[in-house]
Amino acid sequence: MLRYFTAGESHGPALVAIIEGLPAGLAVDTNYINKQLYRRQKGYGRGHRQKIEADQVQILSGIRHGRCLGSPVTLLIENLDHKNWQDVMSAKPTSFSDDKQVRRLKRPRPGHADLAGGLKYQTRDLRDILERASARETAARVAAGALARLLLAEFKIEIASHVVMLGGVPEAPIEADWDSIVAIQDDELLRCVDPQVTQKMIERIDAARTAGDTLGGIFEVVARGLPAGLGSHTQWDLRLDGLLAQAVMSIQAVKAVEIGRGIVAAYLPGSQIHDEIGYNAKDKSFTRRTNRAGGLEGGITNGQELRIRGYLKPISTLRRPLQSVDIDTKDVSIAAFERSDITAVPAAGVIAEAAVALTLAAAFKTKFGGDSLEEMKANYNSYLEMLKNF
Amino acid sequence: MLRYFTAGESHGPALVAIIEGLPAGLAVDTNYINKQLYRRQKGYGRGHRQKIEADQVQILSGIRHGRCLGSPVTLLIENLDHKNWQDVMSAKPTSFSDDKQVRRLKRPRPGHADLAGGLKYQTRDLRDILERASARETAARVAAGALARLLLAEFKIEIASHVVMLGGVPEAPIEADWDSIVAIQDDELLRCVDPQVTQKMIERIDAARTAGDTLGGIFEVVARGLPAGLGSHTQWDLRLDGLLAQAVMSIQAVKAVEIGRGIVAAYLPGSQIHDEIGYNAKDKSFTRRTNRAGGLEGGITNGQELRIRGYLKPISTLRRPLQSVDIDTKDVSIAAFERSDITAVPAAGVIAEAAVALTLAAAFKTKFGGDSLEEMKANYNSYLEMLKNF
Amino acid sequence: MLRYFTAGESHGPALVAIIEGLPAGLAVDTNYINKQLYRRQKGYGRGHRQKIEADQVQILSGIRHGRCLGSPVTLLIENLDHKNWQDVMSAKPTSFSDDKQVRRLKRPRPGHADLAGGLKYQTRDLRDILERASARETAARVAAGALARLLLAEFKIEIASHVVMLGGVPEAPIEADWDSIVAIQDDELLRCVDPQVTQKMIERIDAARTAGDTLGGIFEVVARGLPAGLGSHTQWDLRLDGLLAQAVMSIQAVKAVEIGRGIVAAYLPGSQIHDEIGYNAKDKSFTRRTNRAGGLEGGITNGQELRIRGYLKPISTLRRPLQSVDIDTKDVSIAAFERSDITAVPAAGVIAEAAVALTLAAAFKTKFGGDSLEEMKANYNSYLEMLKNF
Amino acid sequence: MLRYFTAGESHGPALVAIIEGLPAGLAVDTNYINKQLYRRQKGYGRGHRQKIEADQVQILSGIRHGRCLGSPVTLLIENLDHKNWQDVMSAKPTSFSDDKQVRRLKRPRPGHADLAGGLKYQTRDLRDILERASARETAARVAAGALARLLLAEFKIEIASHVVMLGGVPEAPIEADWDSIVAIQDDELLRCVDPQVTQKMIERIDAARTAGDTLGGIFEVVARGLPAGLGSHTQWDLRLDGLLAQAVMSIQAVKAVEIGRGIVAAYLPGSQIHDEIGYNAKDKSFTRRTNRAGGLEGGITNGQELRIRGYLKPISTLRRPLQSVDIDTKDVSIAAFERSDITAVPAAGVIAEAAVALTLAAAFKTKFGGDSLEEMKANYNSYLEMLKNF
Repeated sequence: MLRYFTAGESHGPALVAIIEGLPAGLAVDTNYINKQLYRRQKGYGRGHRQKIEADQVQILSGIRHGRCLGSPVTLLIENLDHKNWQDVMSAKPTSFSDDKQVRRLKRPRPGHADLAGGLKYQTRDLRDILERASARETAARVAAGALARLLLAEFKIEIASHVVMLGGVPEAPIEADWDSIVAIQDDELLRCVDPQVTQKMIERIDAARTAGDTLGGIFEVVARGLPAGLGSHTQWDLRLDGLLAQAVMSIQAVKAVEIGRGIVAAYLPGSQIHDEIGYNAKDKSFTRRTNRAGGLEGGITNGQELRIRGYLKPISTLRRPLQSVDIDTKDVSIAAFERSDITAVPAAGVIAEAAVALTLAAAFKTKFGGDSLEEMKANYNSYLEMLKNF
Repeated sequence: MLRYFTAGESHGPALVAIIEGLPAGLAVDTNYINKQLYRRQKGYGRGHRQKIEADQVQILSGIRHGRCLGSPVTLLIENLDHKNWQDVMSAKPTSFSDDKQVRRLKRPRPGHADLAGGLKYQTRDLRDILERASARETAARVAAGALARLLLAEFKIEIASHVVMLGGVPEAPIEADWDSIVAIQDDELLRCVDPQVTQKMIERIDAARTAGDTLGGIFEVVARGLPAGLGSHTQWDLRLDGLLAQAVMSIQAVKAVEIGRGIVAAYLPGSQIHDEIGYNAKDKSFTRRTNRAGGLEGGITNGQELRIRGYLKPISTLRRPLQSVDIDTKDVSIAAFERSDITAVPAAGVIAEAAVALTLAAAFKTKFGGDSLEEMKANYNSYLEMLKNF
Repeated sequence: MLRYFTAGESHGPALVAIIEGLPAGLAVDTNYINKQLYRRQKGYGRGHRQKIEADQVQILSGIRHGRCLGSPVTLLIENLDHKNWQDVMSAKPTSFSDDKQVRRLKRPRPGHADLAGGLKYQTRDLRDILERASARETAARVAAGALARLLLAEFKIEIASHVVMLGGVPEAPIEADWDSIVAIQDDELLRCVDPQVTQKMIERIDAARTAGDTLGGIFEVVARGLPAGLGSHTQWDLRLDGLLAQAVMSIQAVKAVEIGRGIVAAYLPGSQIHDEIGYNAKDKSFTRRTNRAGGLEGGITNGQELRIRGYLKPISTLRRPLQSVDIDTKDVSIAAFERSDITAVPAAGVIAEAAVALTLAAAFKTKFGGDSLEEMKANYNSYLEMLKNF
Repeated sequence: MLRYFTAGESHGPALVAIIEGLPAGLAVDTNYINKQLYRRQKGYGRGHRQKIEADQVQILSGIRHGRCLGSPVTLLIENLDHKNWQDVMSAKPTSFSDDKQVRRLKRPRPGHADLAGGLKYQTRDLRDILERASARETAARVAAGALARLLLAEFKIEIASHVVMLGGVPEAPIEADWDSIVAIQDDELLRCVDPQVTQKMIERIDAARTAGDTLGGIFEVVARGLPAGLGSHTQWDLRLDGLLAQAVMSIQAVKAVEIGRGIVAAYLPGSQIHDEIGYNAKDKSFTRRTNRAGGLEGGITNGQELRIRGYLKPISTLRRPLQSVDIDTKDVSIAAFERSDITAVPAAGVIAEAAVALTLAAAFKTKFGGDSLEEMKANYNSYLEMLKNF
């Protein structure tokens, strides 16, 4: 069983991820984790916070001499900004009675967890909610996801993402093949395969910034090299499509998830949607000329590329704030403003890569078992043989 | 904790659902469950199977004298068609050596679990897979969901669904308010609020039938009466948006899930998407003029209508079959044909109502606890008071 | 992941077990399940109920032509006595207003769940509690356990049990080796390896019957053929000792669980308790001359016999009833009497075999993965090779 | 849902605990956590390590201004000894080729996870196993347990422990009532209620030290103030007896778990074991004159004191080492020696208090729900009213 959890507030001392179930012997390179953290922080349209933080991971447990022990791995990412928030975020009882001193937030921002969370947890300082609801939490998921990626890489499974639409640009989401997606550089501004479209997206972002507005968009995650047979049709909560949908929808600001050509599929007849089956005698493998299913049939991987898209709403914190209500006076007011970005679609793609990697790694562990990398590999190779001899 | 599982093959003796965590004292009316099963079987474009089966539930455990005991409830739905499949589906070792006698399936149908499942479970009779992967399984989910609905109804929470697009008709999904959705009759042909659109959908289905083709579409589930505060932003696997996405995506043939106006949200700026906050002093409740968020912010219900859409691919079994491969000879062939429907979008909506009801009931149990209905209600009312005094 | 649940009331229509995660291709013989059910019903000192019921399993799902499909297996055991309880246990709303007609129970029996359950679920008919709390539920666990045993048997893992003390006879629990335990016949009266002790136990039971009293005792479950490496020391809830303790303690009337010589170990110094390590060059395996650890070190199997004991309190229903209180009047009264046994230690051992088998099968599935028996076996053999080459 | 996990190696940089599901508003005092950590480190017969470490907790998340936020709480305990082990335990790839430099362990210690873990995880340096298997891990459990205690304290539930036998002294475990147990001071040498027995235990420990041997014993945890109704009889994995047995058995070196008078109960007839039921009209509560059941009937708390005992084997690391095998040469050798204690029964009691507290807090959260302390209290009080009016 592979499981993972994160903890940490946005301006608290640190973010933490615990991931459990990685096989003993898996090599872990801290630089690789940091590289993923770097990728998450990139993107045109990001705000000031990304300049303060240059996320670096510390390993507190589970790894010795560069290899996993099989025990839980704890990853810690310091919040460099915390030094400016020590009183506001102190764990100790405070004597501050002034709202300003603790940066109390009482005008909930539409689109955020502020109000719903405040009601649920019965707190009158909505900062208690936003500090955890903040998308900064995803740094911890990306760090954990980096370990999942390293595991999958041992089985030649790779994961990438690209931005297929941002703020309505272009109108029809971009289709791209694997090679053009992996050709995207980590410091590329918007993780879009088409430089001309990128330019238009930049213009769209600049216009939004001028207007004090924010933008959403669509990203696509692609996983390549997966064997047929991950996930299961046998119970609703074992289906990999459902598990992936959960993982991606649980990313802050994602409001829709699509597998393969899921949305177009609803419009077209079956004869144009289902992927006909062929056979490659040389490889001893079943083939498809098309992949509208996005690599999943019946909740199970079918050996094709996994393709999953997330639809991101615009960032909920606007510089030109929306209407809200003061929770003390109940008077109509404008929403609080908390430093934020204009858009974060490229980052969301990177975060979704991590979420997908963690979900696939868990499915891998379930199917192939194994407590050491050696054992897991032996099991995997034995299964690949079975697939060939099917 | 409320949890549920289903079991059963499509042509086996029965489908079974076990649901656990319902409070003692909850009144259960068998007719209500049967009514939900009836709603699942309706719809223009369904095939012959729905005429054979007129699903009726039997209660094997957990209910006594019309009320839940707090113990696991077992629901059983006999497969009436099983009598014609006793040899094919017998649990006993068989002496049949003839493929025909056991209706062996060896030409996997594109879009179904047949091939991926066959490879995963290493079976050479793909019937071993399709019997469980079949959407007939959802009858059990609908039965379990009926109990979840009865629980929610005690708290004045109602759930309904409608078809917003079928096979491309109409081009733009239909928007409908609560009253027009609940006005849909259970025996209405396509569960669409607009009779003129319904007529066009019927024509589309007739054309597909003539062409030996199949159709998908989009349904929307709406839940009304939910309090703010179900789900949580604090951990990825506690977010209600993720849990709902999993529940709906795990329904056979669903390939995309959208919360509120999630897809449009990716295209528009923040100023046009987020739902501004107001306050109703009379009700002592926070209000919204719009509900593009679909009732969820930060993975938590915000007290607005929950709106979630599922995108259904066309049914994978085509009368004019697609290309496949014989798994014995590896020769290109046409896919096997297994009796099926032209389309099942209205049914999928009913199934998704059940999936949503089960997810909400679980979130309810988590937040309000309570082992008897009386206890749960006391807790709920106490929370509603807190919301008013916030 | 292998998981299992049971459902069903003692006098309801049926008991049900669902077990999930068995590999496709595992051969299942109904007679074998029935044999385990038979073993559970045996034993000197059992009451009338065991004569009414001659438990026979029906398979409702998950098995076709004698082999597991990989889908959830549903096992159903009809309660033959139900025909005499149809009104009392009807799922339909009842018009009975008379306590007698519904056999209402309002004087809770000390030692049973009656009172604690009644308070928890706020029911004024304690029959609502006892029907599910009854040890008859364990028939379903034994049936599910039979499938786990069949799985383990494919890997040459066997499980047996014996009674080591009953009602204080003999004073010091009996020690027995594997061969003498498996030599016990299924219809042997008390599952004790020593005929002379058995005779004394019978006398003890007869005396208790005369006195209107009941007896407990100690059973031991032994599993043989386990590889080193099941369970894990890495997290509290992955430790196999903890999981086994839960499984055995969750059996009705078990009040203590001991692994290996766990109780004696608390009294003796380390030099007399820990099992020194040797090596057998021929087998390429590590050896122990002693097995006080009962096959588990650090929450992991170490390749020795697993030995686990359960301590059973006397049956809580006494013919000469204990003091209780009428829940209506609050007057002191005698406890209700519900037909029962004098003792059930041999049966408890058989039930614990099932609980242990299910726990081990789950640990097996976690470590070796595999969706087909063929795949699981390949993984297992590959691991055995690694052990040899360590 | 309340869940918790720990991470961290014995000589790694830190131990970490994450606990999730504590209600918002719960006051947390760091000193209280440190006090529990201090209690764990005390005890006559402890080794040098306890002098190096004076465990202090750091809060990394989930608490702000002295109160829980409802988000996951991360607790970190630095390993002060780590500074002496930086190379040995470095997470970075190492160039050390010398076994001594990395303190490689290759002669597994009987009784520890060393050998079973080494085989499972296929590591040739058994330090990879022992570092996580070490009982130092329990510091993290005690820290998490401190938060669970604080939650329970809000509901007037208290937990204490005492040593009832150590190394065979006295022969019959000590019985003690609540008042004498809570009178034990935190710095008392052996947490035994009887000073004369304590003196004999000290002599026993001194003798063991002289002999290079180690000792085990029995501790008892008592929880007071619990309401009837935690846990459930309805499913095997919901029974509180099973969950408590798992929690206590999962503590390093515990080999048996007993609830109430569970072991004696196996020997005596029912008439002498079950706790007769009375009623106290003044309190409107059901009463018992005896509590042999240890507060649990049918897997549910019955409102009496919870009493649970753990049987600890002697510490597995002996100064006069046992026989082992060198895993490289396979030659018989003596087991490696790793600095350790003579006995740790008092500490084990403190750890078990934490394990019990965490289990009870989880059962509490399941039954009473509630996201804020205020909500949880309202629910609890409402249930207490129901109990009175039953």
